[in-house]
Amino acid sequence: MTVRSFGARLAEEFSAGRHLCAGIDPHAPLLAEWGLADDAAGAERMGREVVAASAGIAACVKPQISFFERFGSAGFLALERVLADARAAGLLVVGDVKRGDIGSTFAAYADAWLAPGSPLEVDAMTVAAYMGFGTLSGAFPYVRDHGKGLFVLAATSNPEAREVQAARRADGSTLAAAMVADAEAFNAAAFGDEAVGSVGVVLGATLDLATFGIETAGSPRRSSWRRRCPCSPPASGRREPGSRTRGRSSGASAAHCSRTSRAAFSRADQRAWRNACAPVRRRSPPRWPTRRDPPPPGVPRARPTQYIRGR
Amino acid sequence: MTVRSFGARLAEEFSAGRHLCAGIDPHAPLLAEWGLADDAAGAERMGREVVAASAGIAACVKPQISFFERFGSAGFLALERVLADARAAGLLVVGDVKRGDIGSTFAAYADAWLAPGSPLEVDAMTVAAYMGFGTLSGAFPYVRDHGKGLFVLAATSNPEAREVQAARRADGSTLAAAMVADAEAFNAAAFGDEAVGSVGVVLGATLDLATFGIETAGSPRRSSWRRRCPCSPPASGRREPGSRTRGRSSGASAAHCSRTSRAAFSRADQRAWRNACAPVRRRSPPRWPTRRDPPPPGVPRARPTQYIRGR
Repeated sequence: MTVRSFGARLAEEFSAGRHLCAGIDPHAPLLAEWGLADDAAGAERMGREVVAASAGIAACVKPQISFFERFGSAGFLALERVLADARAAGLLVVGDVKRGDIGSTFAAYADAWLAPGSPLEVDAMTVAAYMGFGTLSGAFPYVRDHGKGLFVLAATSNPEAREVQAARRADGSTLAAAMVADAEAFNAAAFGDEAVGSVGVVLGATLDLATFGIETAGSPRRSSWRRRCPCSPPASGRREPGSRTRGRSSGASAAHCSRTSRAAFSRADQRAWRNACAPVRRRSPPRWPTRRDPPPPGVPRARPTQYIRGR
Repeated sequence: MTVRSFGARLAEEFSAGRHLCAGIDPHAPLLAEWGLADDAAGAERMGREVVAASAGIAACVKPQISFFERFGSAGFLALERVLADARAAGLLVVGDVKRGDIGSTFAAYADAWLAPGSPLEVDAMTVAAYMGFGTLSGAFPYVRDHGKGLFVLAATSNPEAREVQAARRADGSTLAAAMVADAEAFNAAAFGDEAVGSVGVVLGATLDLATFGIETAGSPRRSSWRRRCPCSPPASGRREPGSRTRGRSSGASAAHCSRTSRAAFSRADQRAWRNACAPVRRRSPPRWPTRRDPPPPGVPRARPTQYIRGR
C-alpha cells in the first residue's frame, strides 16, 4: 500500500473545503469556562468534545500537549483517548509539542509522536531547532515514508522572539529565514512532485516577515487580523499571540488557528471567522489546489491560498 | 519554612563530595545491553536501578524524558515511579526535557515539571529558548520561590548547532553568549547573595567556547575528554556528543554527564571517570565552595571548580 504524504493529505482536506484546524487547549481558565474540573478527566472531556464537534468540518485538530503534560501520566492517558477519537473521526492531528533535541534523543521524540502504532501517534508535530535544522533528521524517515509532517518554528509572534529569530547566521540570513529555506529544501528534495510539502514552518501572524528576510505572498492587513475570531481564547485567560503555519513558500498553506475556546463551530461561525481573518494572496498563479472538488453543502468555498490567521 | 534554592542544594552536594550526575537513558540499545525489554517496564527497571545505585554517591540523576515519552502514558507512569524513588533517596533530579514554548503554554510545562506535588516534579529541567529567553518566565516563580532550577541550552556540541547558536543578534553577541548572559543576569538579580545560581546553561564539552564569545575558566584538554568514561553510551547505540552544564560563570558548575551505560558506579569507577574527565580551572580564586566539608569515606575530594565532562 502506498502511503500518502502528509502534504497530500492536507491538500485533499483543503480541496474538500475544510480549512480549519481546531486547537485543543485545556488550560485552567478555559476548563473553568467549560464548567470542567482542572484535571486529566476535564482535559479529556474537552478534547473529545472538540474532536466530536470538528469531525467533518475541520481539516485537523491541534492539541497543545503542555496542557495535558501538566497532569503527568494521567494527562497522557487522557490525550491518548483524544487522539484515538480524532483518528476514528478521520481528522488530521497536529501535535503541538515543540520538541527539540539531538541525535538519538530527538529520534526518540519522533518515535513517540510519529511512529505508526505509537500510543501518542499524530499526523504531524511542531518542532524547535535551536540545536540546528539537522537535528530534526530523526523524524525525516517518518515524513518521507510514513506520511507524517513537521512544523518547524521559524518566526513566532511573541515579542521576545525577535532577538533570537532575527539573529544573523554567518551566511547573512536570519535564523527564521534559514529555517524556512531548510524546510523548502527538504520539501523540494523529498516532495518535489507534490503541490504541498510535508514540512511546514510556524510564522507569527502579527509579524512583518520581510524584516526577517522571509518572502510572503502579500502584506498583512492588520485591521482584519486583530478582529476577534470565534476560536480565540477567553478574555480571562493568559493570552498568547496567534500564529499561522505555512506549508511551502510556493503558496500552499496549512489552515491553522492557534487557540480555540469553543468546539461547536456553527457554519455561521465558520463564515464569520473566515471573513474576520485576512487572506494573503499569492503573487503568482496558484499551483494548488489543482482539484476543484465542491465544498460540502452550506460550507462556503474558501479562497485557495488563504492563510487562516489567529489574532 | 524557608525553601532552599536549587543552587544552594547543588552546592551542598558538591561540598559533600558528590559531583556526579547519573544519566538515565533507557534507549533501545542500552535496554538490550541490560537484558531488559524495550518497553515501559524495562525503562522503569533501568531507571529504578540507576537511582538505587546512585543513592549516596551521586549528587543527582538526569532522566532523558524522550526515552520514556516514546512509550506514551505507560512511559510517563514508569517515569513517575523512577522520580518517586529518586526523591525518596534524596537525589536531586534534573529532568532532561528541553521544553520551550510561549506564555501560558510554557507556564504549563513549568507546572508539569516544577510545581511542588506535580506527578512529574523534578528539581530542575532543561529548557530551550528559540522563542527568546523571556519565554522562560513562566518558570521563574518556581525557581525564585520553590527551590527549582533551569538549565538553558546555550552552546551544544552537535556540529549542526553552530549555524544557529553562533548567529549574531542585533547587539553583536552570539545567541549562545546571550543565553549565558541572560542566565547570569537572572541569577544576579534573584540569587546575588548565593555562590551558585539556580539557572544554569548547557555548554558543549567539545567546543571552543571562545568562538561563541563565551568566557570560560580554561581551555579544554581535548586528549582527556575524548577518553571513554564509564558512563559513556554503548558503542552499538546511536551516539550523541557529550555536554557539560554550567551554573554561574563566576565558577560554580553543575556536575553533569549526559550518558550512562551502567548504574553501578564502583568507587574505582568514579575515580577513573574523574581522572578521564578534564577539570577546567578558573582563572580567579573560587568563591565556591565556601564550606569545606570532608567527603564521605572512600570518595576522593574533587577539585572544587571541576567540570565533569562527557566524551
